[in-house]
Amino acid sequence: MTILVSNDDGVHAPGIRCLAEALAEISNVLTVAPDRNCSGASNSLTLENPLRIVKLDENRISVKGTPTDCVHLAINELVAEPPELVVSGINAGANLGDDVLYSGTVAAAMEGRNLGLPAIAVSLVGSEHYQSAAKVTVKLVEQLRKHALPSNQILNVNVPDLPFEQLKGFKITRLGSRHRAEVMVKQQDPRGHDIYWLGPPGKMQDAGEGTDFAAIAEAYVSITPVTIDMTAHGFIGKLDTWIQDWETK
Amino acid sequence: MTILVSNDDGVHAPGIRCLAEALAEISNVLTVAPDRNCSGASNSLTLENPLRIVKLDENRISVKGTPTDCVHLAINELVAEPPELVVSGINAGANLGDDVLYSGTVAAAMEGRNLGLPAIAVSLVGSEHYQSAAKVTVKLVEQLRKHALPSNQILNVNVPDLPFEQLKGFKITRLGSRHRAEVMVKQQDPRGHDIYWLGPPGKMQDAGEGTDFAAIAEAYVSITPVTIDMTAHGFIGKLDTWIQDWETK
Amino acid sequence: MTILVSNDDGVHAPGIRCLAEALAEISNVLTVAPDRNCSGASNSLTLENPLRIVKLDENRISVKGTPTDCVHLAINELVAEPPELVVSGINAGANLGDDVLYSGTVAAAMEGRNLGLPAIAVSLVGSEHYQSAAKVTVKLVEQLRKHALPSNQILNVNVPDLPFEQLKGFKITRLGSRHRAEVMVKQQDPRGHDIYWLGPPGKMQDAGEGTDFAAIAEAYVSITPVTIDMTAHGFIGKLDTWIQDWETK
Amino acid sequence: MTILVSNDDGVHAPGIRCLAEALAEISNVLTVAPDRNCSGASNSLTLENPLRIVKLDENRISVKGTPTDCVHLAINELVAEPPELVVSGINAGANLGDDVLYSGTVAAAMEGRNLGLPAIAVSLVGSEHYQSAAKVTVKLVEQLRKHALPSNQILNVNVPDLPFEQLKGFKITRLGSRHRAEVMVKQQDPRGHDIYWLGPPGKMQDAGEGTDFAAIAEAYVSITPVTIDMTAHGFIGKLDTWIQDWETK
Repeated sequence: MTILVSNDDGVHAPGIRCLAEALAEISNVLTVAPDRNCSGASNSLTLENPLRIVKLDENRISVKGTPTDCVHLAINELVAEPPELVVSGINAGANLGDDVLYSGTVAAAMEGRNLGLPAIAVSLVGSEHYQSAAKVTVKLVEQLRKHALPSNQILNVNVPDLPFEQLKGFKITRLGSRHRAEVMVKQQDPRGHDIYWLGPPGKMQDAGEGTDFAAIAEAYVSITPVTIDMTAHGFIGKLDTWIQDWETK
Repeated sequence: MTILVSNDDGVHAPGIRCLAEALAEISNVLTVAPDRNCSGASNSLTLENPLRIVKLDENRISVKGTPTDCVHLAINELVAEPPELVVSGINAGANLGDDVLYSGTVAAAMEGRNLGLPAIAVSLVGSEHYQSAAKVTVKLVEQLRKHALPSNQILNVNVPDLPFEQLKGFKITRLGSRHRAEVMVKQQDPRGHDIYWLGPPGKMQDAGEGTDFAAIAEAYVSITPVTIDMTAHGFIGKLDTWIQDWETK
Repeated sequence: MTILVSNDDGVHAPGIRCLAEALAEISNVLTVAPDRNCSGASNSLTLENPLRIVKLDENRISVKGTPTDCVHLAINELVAEPPELVVSGINAGANLGDDVLYSGTVAAAMEGRNLGLPAIAVSLVGSEHYQSAAKVTVKLVEQLRKHALPSNQILNVNVPDLPFEQLKGFKITRLGSRHRAEVMVKQQDPRGHDIYWLGPPGKMQDAGEGTDFAAIAEAYVSITPVTIDMTAHGFIGKLDTWIQDWETK
Repeated sequence: MTILVSNDDGVHAPGIRCLAEALAEISNVLTVAPDRNCSGASNSLTLENPLRIVKLDENRISVKGTPTDCVHLAINELVAEPPELVVSGINAGANLGDDVLYSGTVAAAMEGRNLGLPAIAVSLVGSEHYQSAAKVTVKLVEQLRKHALPSNQILNVNVPDLPFEQLKGFKITRLGSRHRAEVMVKQQDPRGHDIYWLGPPGKMQDAGEGTDFAAIAEAYVSITPVTIDMTAHGFIGKLDTWIQDWETK
């Protein structure tokens, strides 16, 4: 069995190399990842252009495409039999709270889940101690071999940027939320034309007890079960009452 | 008050023009949409490059960016006061079931919701009767002025591609699901290099009672409440029991 | 007979609209131009991705591609019979001296010439008096109907940004040269990552008698014959003597 | 002194690695090349987006940009003192005749020349014997240390795809020409939308005595002096007579 590894920082990023090396000690590993940094790619698909691949070596494939493209292509075309698991990461930087919606790291795991495989997304809250996140991931993968995840969920894992010995343990969390991102940054390019940059993510807003933000702040590894079913089931009943009077056109 | 209109088919697409014209009869309308077709863009953000805008006319702005970029830029930079509502669409083609995850149309609405505004995404299950979807949208907007949506939800609306008179009414639905997309399409480009296309979406899998697929099949407008909170709250307890024995490093 | 119009500022730019309208008074006109600003595109071709077109109206086609792609696609695929002439422009800003090498405006004309058609590139040294450049172009086209250009040359035309009446006349010129472009502009993006912008073009270096720079400075329309044969024929003999002693491996 | 190496196939391509290794035996080498394949990039510049770099190791830098961007950035920003020479290649495939106009390999050399440095572009007419092209390049560089090239010229070198011993020697050539590229390839993508691919390059047209095509056909290394001055000087006089009667507006 093989573990499929992908990410959104690109196939040449340090996090994915560290992850693949660590997982290679417990499994075959196939890395299929974007040729370029795709941070912020979310679940985007490349529809208007074809994908192209370059085989970097026997177990590493570079794809001109998004993280979701990579996992889709790998599972549907590049592997002979379905992988055991999809692991996405190790992202350089947190994917906490609202970040999840925009993260290509999380999206790569979601695509694995959509295609029938257990999947986890791993992010380092910083860019130094990739080894800590890699060790955490190996432990998690070993657990997932004993416990099956529900078929519409993935685990979103964030690891404090600390030496492994300083991690306090694991906490199961819910996604917190950030304040609205800071205002756009309006500038002029060197030719005098107006440009607008998306600002950095906002500060934490809901970082209370039980959130992923809180776990990280206390030096715990945060594990959030994330669903790929986006229906707001609890609201269906109420909406049903609303539309009674809409019916009559 | 102003309604902010965006989409993922691009600012020049017929659906967004039809939508903006219809909404202009009940509100001020500002269109801020991508300069190009961004189908499949999901919630992707443009982080490595700046955004650029072109003012097409007083109420229409073209953005070199994704649907999410557009809504983010519009609300945080381009408008003087917050819009009343974000309406995304009318998409040329369905956004049913799993499509929601990849849809730039839905993502534009989600971004509005993330930034504090009520928001709906509207798709036509075809590319002919945009007028029907536009009329449906006007009706919905009028309802939303009376009923407040929960702060972490949007409505995902799909309209059968039929004359308005042939629509049977509204159904509140959950997202169904598709079978896995068909296999990748492997070809060679005219220079003899291997390329891979993502195949068309898979056939319906869960299209049973209560799903968006089922509503559309019966000629109803499908309205699905979609959450932007991706935590799988129901699974947190069980995961908590799992990690008891992980703690001991 | 039809005149094919293209540019590098994109199909929605004011310069190309003004040009197409002016030429429509003396010919059929077909506009085939990039969907986005492609300034600096030079003769680049889109090889890894396919081109896509949108028919904006009967005589205007938007192409997801470079200026060279547009002319190539138009002549080889979109027209029933070869156009009479290719006119590229009106560019917003000068294409003088070294600019020619990088200009998508000039490249579109070169592609027409490569495909067997007479071709001219027209740039306005500013962004105000497009009408002046349009009138100049009409006059030139009428002249080219009487005089055939050599089969490996195009005309690169720059028009001072003045009311037509203030233009002093035409000058046939050679390309001057600029000083090296100013240093790169190194910045940090809002996320703290290093970025580098190409600076604005350098100041004039060789702007002496007979150059395009000089003509413009004196309020003349500059017309430079530009070759598409890049062999440095005059140096072949000398090189031949150099390689005498190289032969012996 | 340092030799600056770039290409258009991307920093990870086999040709540029082979070239850098060979040149490292006679000089310091700095490789600054695109992160992706940029074949067909011509002299295109990235103007609307900033460039980003990744230092792969002490002497290899990957740039999110075109070949011209790479050379421009390297010379104006990344090096402490001007390199001795720019060498672009080894391209996988010929750059003969009209190819030169579209080639990013040739463009990278031209940019070096524009910025005041001697420069050569090296292409392998195939993708097997990079070592042959590397040896040829080393020999050429040693010659260029004795003979100065004119300040507005580069050398465009094409090497037959043969073992070094089978190369017959060097020929100084002019650029031949190809027949018009074959017709566009019109297809439908898997979603049923029309797409158009640029076809492969046309067959040789002018491949007669003295051309680069002819040299290659006879197993010689072809060396063509290419000018960066695109003025058609020989035609200025005739044009001057033409415009006598244009003057009177």
